[in-house]
Amino acid sequence: MCDREKNTNIRVSLPAVCIVWQISMIILFGIFIRYDAESDAHWLEKKPKNISAIENDFYFRYPSFQDVHVMVFVGFGFLMTFLKRYSFGGVGFNFLIAAFGLQWALLMQGWFHHLGDDGKISINVYSMINADFCVAGCLIAYGALLGKVSPVQLMVLTLFGVTLFAVEEYIILNLIYAKDAGGSMVIHTFGAYYGLAISWMLYRPNLDQSSRLQGSVYHSDVFAMIGTLFLWMFWPSFNSAITEHGDGQHRAAINTYLSLASTVLTAVAVSSVFQKHGKLDMVHIQNATLAGGVAVGTAAEFMLMPYGSLIVGFCCGILSTLGYIYITPFLEKHLKIQDTCGIHNLHAMPGVIGGIVGAITAAAASESVYGTEGIKLFKFPPAQQGGHQAGALCVALCFGIGGGILVGAILRLPIWGDPADDNCFDDESYWEKKGSEHCLVGLDDPTPNVKMPRIAQGLRKHWRSFIIFFFF
Amino acid sequence: MCDREKNTNIRVSLPAVCIVWQISMIILFGIFIRYDAESDAHWLEKKPKNISAIENDFYFRYPSFQDVHVMVFVGFGFLMTFLKRYSFGGVGFNFLIAAFGLQWALLMQGWFHHLGDDGKISINVYSMINADFCVAGCLIAYGALLGKVSPVQLMVLTLFGVTLFAVEEYIILNLIYAKDAGGSMVIHTFGAYYGLAISWMLYRPNLDQSSRLQGSVYHSDVFAMIGTLFLWMFWPSFNSAITEHGDGQHRAAINTYLSLASTVLTAVAVSSVFQKHGKLDMVHIQNATLAGGVAVGTAAEFMLMPYGSLIVGFCCGILSTLGYIYITPFLEKHLKIQDTCGIHNLHAMPGVIGGIVGAITAAAASESVYGTEGIKLFKFPPAQQGGHQAGALCVALCFGIGGGILVGAILRLPIWGDPADDNCFDDESYWEKKGSEHCLVGLDDPTPNVKMPRIAQGLRKHWRSFIIFFFF
Amino acid sequence: MCDREKNTNIRVSLPAVCIVWQISMIILFGIFIRYDAESDAHWLEKKPKNISAIENDFYFRYPSFQDVHVMVFVGFGFLMTFLKRYSFGGVGFNFLIAAFGLQWALLMQGWFHHLGDDGKISINVYSMINADFCVAGCLIAYGALLGKVSPVQLMVLTLFGVTLFAVEEYIILNLIYAKDAGGSMVIHTFGAYYGLAISWMLYRPNLDQSSRLQGSVYHSDVFAMIGTLFLWMFWPSFNSAITEHGDGQHRAAINTYLSLASTVLTAVAVSSVFQKHGKLDMVHIQNATLAGGVAVGTAAEFMLMPYGSLIVGFCCGILSTLGYIYITPFLEKHLKIQDTCGIHNLHAMPGVIGGIVGAITAAAASESVYGTEGIKLFKFPPAQQGGHQAGALCVALCFGIGGGILVGAILRLPIWGDPADDNCFDDESYWEKKGSEHCLVGLDDPTPNVKMPRIAQGLRKHWRSFIIFFFF
Repeated sequence: MCDREKNTNIRVSLPAVCIVWQISMIILFGIFIRYDAESDAHWLEKKPKNISAIENDFYFRYPSFQDVHVMVFVGFGFLMTFLKRYSFGGVGFNFLIAAFGLQWALLMQGWFHHLGDDGKISINVYSMINADFCVAGCLIAYGALLGKVSPVQLMVLTLFGVTLFAVEEYIILNLIYAKDAGGSMVIHTFGAYYGLAISWMLYRPNLDQSSRLQGSVYHSDVFAMIGTLFLWMFWPSFNSAITEHGDGQHRAAINTYLSLASTVLTAVAVSSVFQKHGKLDMVHIQNATLAGGVAVGTAAEFMLMPYGSLIVGFCCGILSTLGYIYITPFLEKHLKIQDTCGIHNLHAMPGVIGGIVGAITAAAASESVYGTEGIKLFKFPPAQQGGHQAGALCVALCFGIGGGILVGAILRLPIWGDPADDNCFDDESYWEKKGSEHCLVGLDDPTPNVKMPRIAQGLRKHWRSFIIFFFF
Repeated sequence: MCDREKNTNIRVSLPAVCIVWQISMIILFGIFIRYDAESDAHWLEKKPKNISAIENDFYFRYPSFQDVHVMVFVGFGFLMTFLKRYSFGGVGFNFLIAAFGLQWALLMQGWFHHLGDDGKISINVYSMINADFCVAGCLIAYGALLGKVSPVQLMVLTLFGVTLFAVEEYIILNLIYAKDAGGSMVIHTFGAYYGLAISWMLYRPNLDQSSRLQGSVYHSDVFAMIGTLFLWMFWPSFNSAITEHGDGQHRAAINTYLSLASTVLTAVAVSSVFQKHGKLDMVHIQNATLAGGVAVGTAAEFMLMPYGSLIVGFCCGILSTLGYIYITPFLEKHLKIQDTCGIHNLHAMPGVIGGIVGAITAAAASESVYGTEGIKLFKFPPAQQGGHQAGALCVALCFGIGGGILVGAILRLPIWGDPADDNCFDDESYWEKKGSEHCLVGLDDPTPNVKMPRIAQGLRKHWRSFIIFFFF
Repeated sequence: MCDREKNTNIRVSLPAVCIVWQISMIILFGIFIRYDAESDAHWLEKKPKNISAIENDFYFRYPSFQDVHVMVFVGFGFLMTFLKRYSFGGVGFNFLIAAFGLQWALLMQGWFHHLGDDGKISINVYSMINADFCVAGCLIAYGALLGKVSPVQLMVLTLFGVTLFAVEEYIILNLIYAKDAGGSMVIHTFGAYYGLAISWMLYRPNLDQSSRLQGSVYHSDVFAMIGTLFLWMFWPSFNSAITEHGDGQHRAAINTYLSLASTVLTAVAVSSVFQKHGKLDMVHIQNATLAGGVAVGTAAEFMLMPYGSLIVGFCCGILSTLGYIYITPFLEKHLKIQDTCGIHNLHAMPGVIGGIVGAITAAAASESVYGTEGIKLFKFPPAQQGGHQAGALCVALCFGIGGGILVGAILRLPIWGDPADDNCFDDESYWEKKGSEHCLVGLDDPTPNVKMPRIAQGLRKHWRSFIIFFFF
């Protein structure tokens, strides 16, 4: 009973976190972030004479950037609108944490990768793609927690998630010298295990109290298909966005296109065979059809060959759908991991497979296949490169699980305004519905408008937490 | 009565078809499909020294490809969500058959157009656009059959549709040497008549038994507008995607942009004048506004002139809307063609007009208008080229109608699990709705879960059909 | 009472306006509009030999064009679907007036900017972007009037709006030589004050009679998020679309990306702090999160610096959200301006701020920051340029307010078929709902179908108005 009265008032904490962090961003950007050579007004003067304005890298990265941007905001956002009463939270909080995360990512990734001799970080369209990638890791993690956390918790998750991501990425790409163009390991494996570990730490034994809200309604499932399709369509851009110009980007797009096409067929097949009368399950169509894009991420720029891409997609479509049928219930029942969107099936398993496929493909590389120039894609001889790829996968796993446990511990503090078990999956906790009628259930809220003094009360009650948090 | 008990169990057939075909794709891709020069890792070595990496064709085709990709999956998919209870089937089956079709299209088109001396097909971003184009033909055909066929039938429709398309395209482009940049003939005329012929073969005299489900609800109409707008916006990319680089692509985009703008106004005008109080009909706004894009397809790259594009759009907007008002009911009543989405108005008539406009414009070409270089766009002198264009239109019509009758005959076999007349336009036949509440009607399904032996039964019952089908 | 019987029959006027205007467009396009050098078939012949086909400007503007196109049709269109019963009108009329407006814009902008010595206007992809920009101004104005005007009024609003826009744009860019890449002044300030002035002229004292329809329902809010996100994601393309090639476009995209990210956080913060329990209001998330894109428009191509962009976004997120909470009710109550979508908060105030930021940034420009080449972006020395920018803002304000009052006076004529006060915000006035069931309320319309003679009656009644209107 007392749980029912859990306080979801975030009238102090959410604005405070947003404003404090945004001001911090402005200060840090003022100190560190500058335009890079190609986006600075000096470019016209300083660029080589034989380079024309239309050779600015903007024109060769920006279309990919926009596709990735759509995946992050519309793709992930709408994929999470499937719950019957949590569509606002799905798309809205996704929007909030992505907008915050990308600023922090520009800083973190900048410090690790683009810090000049003058102590300044140079940003360009390439940095924007990477920032979106970094944010994607946190949005994946959000998928496991959808409906069970407060926006303040999500902001904290994102702050730490981006930080961990940048370190992990630096280790994998710049210390281990592994390749990971589409981020099977760096983004998906890390993000998914990060989210699953947090979900394990925040386990809610009585979550079935809100089981009436865990399903979808007809139109919320159609909304989710918007997310699915934009992710599916633009995934070739995702996997090719930061690859080197030329054949690499071209090949990454082809491989991803093929792998995803193959996944759709096997996801449909498995979904159908496990339902009565062979009916399809929307959850599988919305999610498992994307597994091929995840799994082909690392190897997308390699000479995986078109049939290789199809095979990867084939296996992942089967595995991911089986995951939704068997593994998600198992995780919830026996491992106490409650995974709202099934990110274990869509990102964790395919991400690991992607890492393994990458390691095998790299280990099997040869000069006859890649050519004398092409083989320079890898820093080491094939067999050794394969080992490095495998090592990178372990790093991603460790950072995901370890970081998730750590951040999960922080998020268990009773100060974040998360909902009670029977209020999970309900937008009413965090969204004003004044003037908005609901199709199924009346949303009359007789609570009178809170008077100003409450803010003062809240401030008095929580100020210690904030001070402790922000200054340590 | 006995019709009511028609068996829509596809628990054997759908998975079997998906898995068998996907495995066939993997084998055929392994034998035939390779990266082309610009997407192969040898490119760096083999490309001319004065070509830089950013001159890879990827950068000049990929943005168009992505727009076409969005049209195929979101455009066609969401345009078909307008039915009140068939939104899952509209967007979901569109997704399934497009993902299958594009693989088969890469093979079929490859054998006809890109087969090298070594017996291998080279694929690149250009092939991906063409594969999407090929699939679009089948999705158009699906529009006529929406709600009345099983996903297994759609897979068969797509397999044959892509095959016929590739042959027809080869005849039109490589034997007759007609031009058809935006596919008014190759894609729209063929696809529409293919679908209409199949619909004629599958005529359901008692379809009015499911008339309660043939309308839309408020929000399903808004979903359909997503499809309409993405088709409308990206159509300039569709018509310019495979045109030669330079002024041709530029001009194709301008012509399509103008034609579509013009269509909107006349579609609105006709829709309004034929309703009481001048009210607009959503069906017309969703569909007829797109007719100008279809009709300008063939001539988009020609010197149609901006006002010419406006005139084409003007006429098609009127014709297409009148088609929805008069011709669709006529076809259903007198010709026994049941056309769910009205593809006769959106694709068939505008496609034929597009072919005719193309023939006239080509016949009227002159060196003064095109220049000595530009006129080389056409293989033959103008008058002759006009004749070839007209011939191409006939080929598209013959392949569409003939192929449709043939495939329709196959789809009449009683093995495909299509729904009974009173279960048409209802997602319940093929989609699991466990945990999904519907706004209008409860979806309680008291049927007990099918036990495994049923699969065995089904397999015993149908195995002959499968063997016959797959090996002939 | 008599007001209830206001005639919304537009069965004569809407088709007449559409057809007459479209025919006018065809005639004027025939006389004036031609392909420009890069989209004409003579290009191959006439282009310099060292220019290759892939250097056609098409490849460097078209992706931006498509993003802008999506913003205009899906962005603005779906943002206006939030009303519970006016989603058809929001997205549908947006579609209609944008399609008409862009044709007229090509002519108007062409006469001012691209009229050749031969009296012909040359169009290319750059013109298409500008036409979309021009239309955007009118769509912003529509936001204030959403639900309260007839489509015929919207057509008139667009005709005059585009005309005024083209003149204002010519004065600002070509006479005052101000810079306004993203159109903070030219598009947003003008469009918003134009709409607000019209709304003031069309003040409805009894609008509360339709207050039952002024809210949203759950899923209409999710639809509106589609609009929000596509606007938010593609705004960097909007602000960089017509900037000069090279570092300018690159920088404009970066600045806009950052400003928008910052806005999201402050909009969320303010939304939360002003609601009971810190709940978020969907209206703020849908709209105020976009203010940063508007405000950074003018200065996007300047050396605003990354932290400068964040500061602009920071302030606008706060101001815009406060506007929704305090200023919109104030405007309605005390200034008699009824602003359905709150364009004053999303476009007017941020637009003015954008103009001021642009003036300050230009006035603070120096050769050390811009380089000797980069500083040539400005026609005048910095201080003077700042003055010109401020002057441009005044021009935009004057044209917006003055033009709005003028056009508002025209729209008050009782011939346009606008709805009665208690029928506002209801699609039923202009949309046929035959066969479409509504979730909340039955839409049975027992009115018998209008017989042909009524058209004749209408024509007899209104023909003078039309003749007067079209020939003066």
